[in-house]
Amino acid sequence: MLKDSVKHIIVKKVSKNNIFDTEDQLAIEEPLEIQVKYDLAGNQTKKSISVTMRTPGNDEELAVGFLFTEGIINDKSQVEKINTDIFDENKVLVTLTENVVPKFQTSERNFYTTSSCGVCGKSSIDAIKTVSSFQQKEDNISVPANLFYTLQKTLRKEQEVFQNTGGLHASAIFDLQGNSILLREDVGRHNALDKVIGASFLNEQLPLNNIILLLSGRASFELIQKASMAGIKIVAAIGAPSSLALQLAEDFDITLIGFLGKERFNIYSGSQRITL
Amino acid sequence: MLKDSVKHIIVKKVSKNNIFDTEDQLAIEEPLEIQVKYDLAGNQTKKSISVTMRTPGNDEELAVGFLFTEGIINDKSQVEKINTDIFDENKVLVTLTENVVPKFQTSERNFYTTSSCGVCGKSSIDAIKTVSSFQQKEDNISVPANLFYTLQKTLRKEQEVFQNTGGLHASAIFDLQGNSILLREDVGRHNALDKVIGASFLNEQLPLNNIILLLSGRASFELIQKASMAGIKIVAAIGAPSSLALQLAEDFDITLIGFLGKERFNIYSGSQRITL
Repeated sequence: MLKDSVKHIIVKKVSKNNIFDTEDQLAIEEPLEIQVKYDLAGNQTKKSISVTMRTPGNDEELAVGFLFTEGIINDKSQVEKINTDIFDENKVLVTLTENVVPKFQTSERNFYTTSSCGVCGKSSIDAIKTVSSFQQKEDNISVPANLFYTLQKTLRKEQEVFQNTGGLHASAIFDLQGNSILLREDVGRHNALDKVIGASFLNEQLPLNNIILLLSGRASFELIQKASMAGIKIVAAIGAPSSLALQLAEDFDITLIGFLGKERFNIYSGSQRITL
Repeated sequence: MLKDSVKHIIVKKVSKNNIFDTEDQLAIEEPLEIQVKYDLAGNQTKKSISVTMRTPGNDEELAVGFLFTEGIINDKSQVEKINTDIFDENKVLVTLTENVVPKFQTSERNFYTTSSCGVCGKSSIDAIKTVSSFQQKEDNISVPANLFYTLQKTLRKEQEVFQNTGGLHASAIFDLQGNSILLREDVGRHNALDKVIGASFLNEQLPLNNIILLLSGRASFELIQKASMAGIKIVAAIGAPSSLALQLAEDFDITLIGFLGKERFNIYSGSQRITL
């Protein structure tokens, strides 16, 4: 039943003025439809929530991760079961526990943000604050700067599919000592993060207060929104953040690091958590 | 009235065990609401079509480019005027010429694809074929391989905002002799391409049969879909294509090049147009 993440093809490689056929691998991009079934006082309803272009693999995590970061569900006890459609591997059905009311209303507005849309920046930032399941707490997290230098090395080593295709984003979480906990890859950067958060949701490890989230690419508004939903306090990206990502990180007191390289990085917000 | 594309900030740069404050620039990411107003037999209707997270700049191009690549409009004569809201620079209103019927029905399904969603790959590929404004014609386009080596150099040189922020995607078009025609940048890769296509739409230069489209990053399904709507025959990406991008390129007889480097690239489809 497990779908592949890569497709083997023959490609024509051109080098200077030579051309030759060779085998190569592409990251698979396919649609996943996420459906929710819920039962209120005996009335069963099935609803299609979203269709996302994703790389097959860890689809159950992606489905519950998406439902959680959209605020539709907030606890594992609300999920009765998760099934991949036996006739169509590109459909996942999440069945909620009897009488659990999915919070669609709060999420309708958020769908805009997750689909690279997003209503007015200010109002959606306010909205996310209301939706978030976890209270913001004071913390005294402290991470030495040189710990971050090792993280990207680990990321590259563990990004297996990326090595073969060059076409995948990754999200990874590490503990505060720099030990790798979990890594997920996807053609969509938001999917990679939803898979990480979905896995943590299913392992009942939320909120992720005491971890470092590492992003293989750039940090957009959408990724910081998802991180904030999961209670993440430190986000480090290999690439650049956007202006709105920084604004959201400041509002949520998230430490935002960008351009993480071998022996350097930038701290955009929350520098109190980094020690030299 | 022109909004900035970059935001100036103070960032803490960490290098080995040193830390210092310095000025830096971030790519601006803000929501743009695209609205359409149309007048059918005296009945005026105003409709919000999409909200996309974009980098401000060339918003009018982005709006009509989006409407065109979604199949809602197909010709400049259908557009009476385009206005940025005087009270909110994050809203653009496209007013259609009297009695032009916007093709919302065909587009509703396509919205899924543009918002990184996408219904079942196969069915949406069929759907796009129906929607496309331009007939596929035989061509005898022929481009020497070494012309591509110069394109990425030009791209890097012209990607000014990227140079300063590291946070932007670019789409650029070149003629078949490798001369740069147009380049647009955005935090969203789909927006950068919609801006290029929107500019060509406003200049009445569609279909873009005889140009090369260069993408600064990876080639996803969504980007090839937009390229096919504009009649583009050659797409070259600095990064990797996805499996579905290749499938679509094959179906539309588009030449798809990936991993374009200084003296090398891969041809995934349509190699008959490349000569050594």
